[in-house]
Amino acid sequence: MAELHLLSPAGFAATGVYAGIKSTKTPDVGLLVCATAATAAAVFTTNRVFAAPVKIGRRHIAGGKLRGVIVNAGNANACTGRQGDRDALRMCEVAAQVIGCAPEQVLPSSTGIIGHLLPMEKVAKGIHAASQCLGNSQEHALLFTRAIMTTDLKRKAAAVHFKLGGQKVYLAGVCKGSGMIGPRLALADAAQSARPKHATMLAYLTTDAQIAPSLLRQLLNEAADASFNAVTVDDHTSTNDTACILASGASGARVASASALKSFTQALREVSQSLAYQIAADGEGASKVVAITVSKATDEKAAQTIARAIANSPLVKCAMNGNDPNWGRIVSAAGYAGVPFDPARAVLSLQGTVVFRHGQPVPFDTAKVSAALKAPEVKVDLACGLGRASAQCWTCDLSKEYVAINADYHT
Amino acid sequence: MAELHLLSPAGFAATGVYAGIKSTKTPDVGLLVCATAATAAAVFTTNRVFAAPVKIGRRHIAGGKLRGVIVNAGNANACTGRQGDRDALRMCEVAAQVIGCAPEQVLPSSTGIIGHLLPMEKVAKGIHAASQCLGNSQEHALLFTRAIMTTDLKRKAAAVHFKLGGQKVYLAGVCKGSGMIGPRLALADAAQSARPKHATMLAYLTTDAQIAPSLLRQLLNEAADASFNAVTVDDHTSTNDTACILASGASGARVASASALKSFTQALREVSQSLAYQIAADGEGASKVVAITVSKATDEKAAQTIARAIANSPLVKCAMNGNDPNWGRIVSAAGYAGVPFDPARAVLSLQGTVVFRHGQPVPFDTAKVSAALKAPEVKVDLACGLGRASAQCWTCDLSKEYVAINADYHT
Repeated sequence: MAELHLLSPAGFAATGVYAGIKSTKTPDVGLLVCATAATAAAVFTTNRVFAAPVKIGRRHIAGGKLRGVIVNAGNANACTGRQGDRDALRMCEVAAQVIGCAPEQVLPSSTGIIGHLLPMEKVAKGIHAASQCLGNSQEHALLFTRAIMTTDLKRKAAAVHFKLGGQKVYLAGVCKGSGMIGPRLALADAAQSARPKHATMLAYLTTDAQIAPSLLRQLLNEAADASFNAVTVDDHTSTNDTACILASGASGARVASASALKSFTQALREVSQSLAYQIAADGEGASKVVAITVSKATDEKAAQTIARAIANSPLVKCAMNGNDPNWGRIVSAAGYAGVPFDPARAVLSLQGTVVFRHGQPVPFDTAKVSAALKAPEVKVDLACGLGRASAQCWTCDLSKEYVAINADYHT
Repeated sequence: MAELHLLSPAGFAATGVYAGIKSTKTPDVGLLVCATAATAAAVFTTNRVFAAPVKIGRRHIAGGKLRGVIVNAGNANACTGRQGDRDALRMCEVAAQVIGCAPEQVLPSSTGIIGHLLPMEKVAKGIHAASQCLGNSQEHALLFTRAIMTTDLKRKAAAVHFKLGGQKVYLAGVCKGSGMIGPRLALADAAQSARPKHATMLAYLTTDAQIAPSLLRQLLNEAADASFNAVTVDDHTSTNDTACILASGASGARVASASALKSFTQALREVSQSLAYQIAADGEGASKVVAITVSKATDEKAAQTIARAIANSPLVKCAMNGNDPNWGRIVSAAGYAGVPFDPARAVLSLQGTVVFRHGQPVPFDTAKVSAALKAPEVKVDLACGLGRASAQCWTCDLSKEYVAINADYHT
């Protein structure tokens, strides 16, 4: 059986081309097209400084239908004033022209440096070139994925198939993200009221299931909270974060019954979490994923807050980099998270070894636990002993390479 | 004129001795004594995981009178359960014995590694040894300062004299802090309700002014907000943060009139801010201080929140390390702070050069600004254009050395 990919769901075509925006001479304009008007939903950054494509994207997604997505890498089109808005809209217009649809049926995204106007002539030429070589093979999916990457070292993709009322349907996705990662995505109308969330991460998902726009919106929002909004590299919420899903309906199978809803929800969560995990694993300078589970908290929000406080502590992240079972940094981070936490009731494990219980250290073999921390994934489990809620979050270690990447990357 | 120091205010004596707690063989037990019962106030960490000396210290400061402060470095006595509480109390008992006062008149502090029981025999011997060599010379002040240091590379001290009702009085202080710095100090009774603040920083201030306990409490709390609570190295609120002031009253000059209150308030703020600034300058791995001023914000809390979001962004801190005028990271950090911010009304300057105004980049000489960022202090000024409130905060850059210090420091 062929490997699943972004274009496995029926009804989609895509590609990526080099338009001359990135200095690396790798694809930097990606075009994803649906043969018919797809039911679509998107969540965006809650940063009050949001890029022009986010502004335009929020408007275009309002109708719940899209024919395509147009993305460029190498330039974020953020902090670019009115000309930036015009350029983001122009990207949609050119894409709409080649697709044969209204500009409002195209969602634009950009990622890269902040504060520079897009080289629009190059972008427009790139869109035209992309339209000439669309396809639905795995190679086309790879080209699209490549075109959205910036400092990413690895391509990030996930796909599943499942049954919906006896019919086989597909759900797939790709994403980018490595630095400026701490997404806090929300639906367009929630953006100003929500607490800010964080990263430049971009994610695009496809499915050939049939689903109502309002349900898709709700499910994407929930899936984002359990995936993209649970990953952090440096807790720096980007101006451009976007996750978008398009449902072509080409399978004819509808998300209608309770069991269909359950299957679809599970598939969406599985793909989203896989993508989020891949972002943590490819975090700038990362040598490992740190998977933090906070359980027995008073409520889910408290569990998430504690998990994020641990994930974002530079001291915890450096300890992970040095394979140091420095549990004091983890417990103290939980203590300053600002939500109920009582060390006298907490139990902390590192890679399955209990290191702290009920306010006191538990003797453990330091060399053995330190060796266990050298794994590509480190499990940090904190049971609060206060309630029944739990939450998970993924991050990576903080290394000298992260500093090198971000001290030497010049504007 | 001799240089001012911690023991310039009349009525105090101090020293530091090596008791065998630190591996560096530098002083690690510090004793500060007031000849009479000093009016005293203290603010402590708001971390829900607080060390035993913080627990005991909160109790002892309640009476508003202290005869002494006993501090050890090299071991935080945090996450040490009931034995930890007994040890912190025992430190006070031994100190009280050598001073000749009640244990409740002694404030204990500890700083160092979390989760290890204090070597109490060594500590007790150290306190006895210290009691044999108390004095009020500058050398004694230096020994006390040395005894509270951990990863600090520099001694941190400040002192002023001023007139109170025509009489000359002194106010002085010393502090420690380099990593795990992001103090969020509060009065003992506010600790559980306040949002957590952050660092292990310890600060001890002395004055020979006469002042009412309730007024001293209030003024210390306000001064801490404008100084220690406005410095961050890694935003990791420690389990042990403490700032304490002792007023001997030995000058006979009373903080009574409005003008006396003003002079005292100003002196306290000046010394506290100098100490806080020295913490940022000696941040682990720091090559420079980043002084962030946020002005024209809707309210002071919003201004502080934006300043802290900028100060705590690893991307901003790495850019500072690389002398990179990457204003996009600064503006986007302001945008995710979670308080009102509108890039269209904001103006950002780096070292006095405007780089972003009203939603758009301002052309500037990149090489020149980059060269200006190589200074030992970098000024970041963000005018929000939304109101009249302002706030300041101090941080340092994030370097490979910070990672090295904290990845290689093993438990």
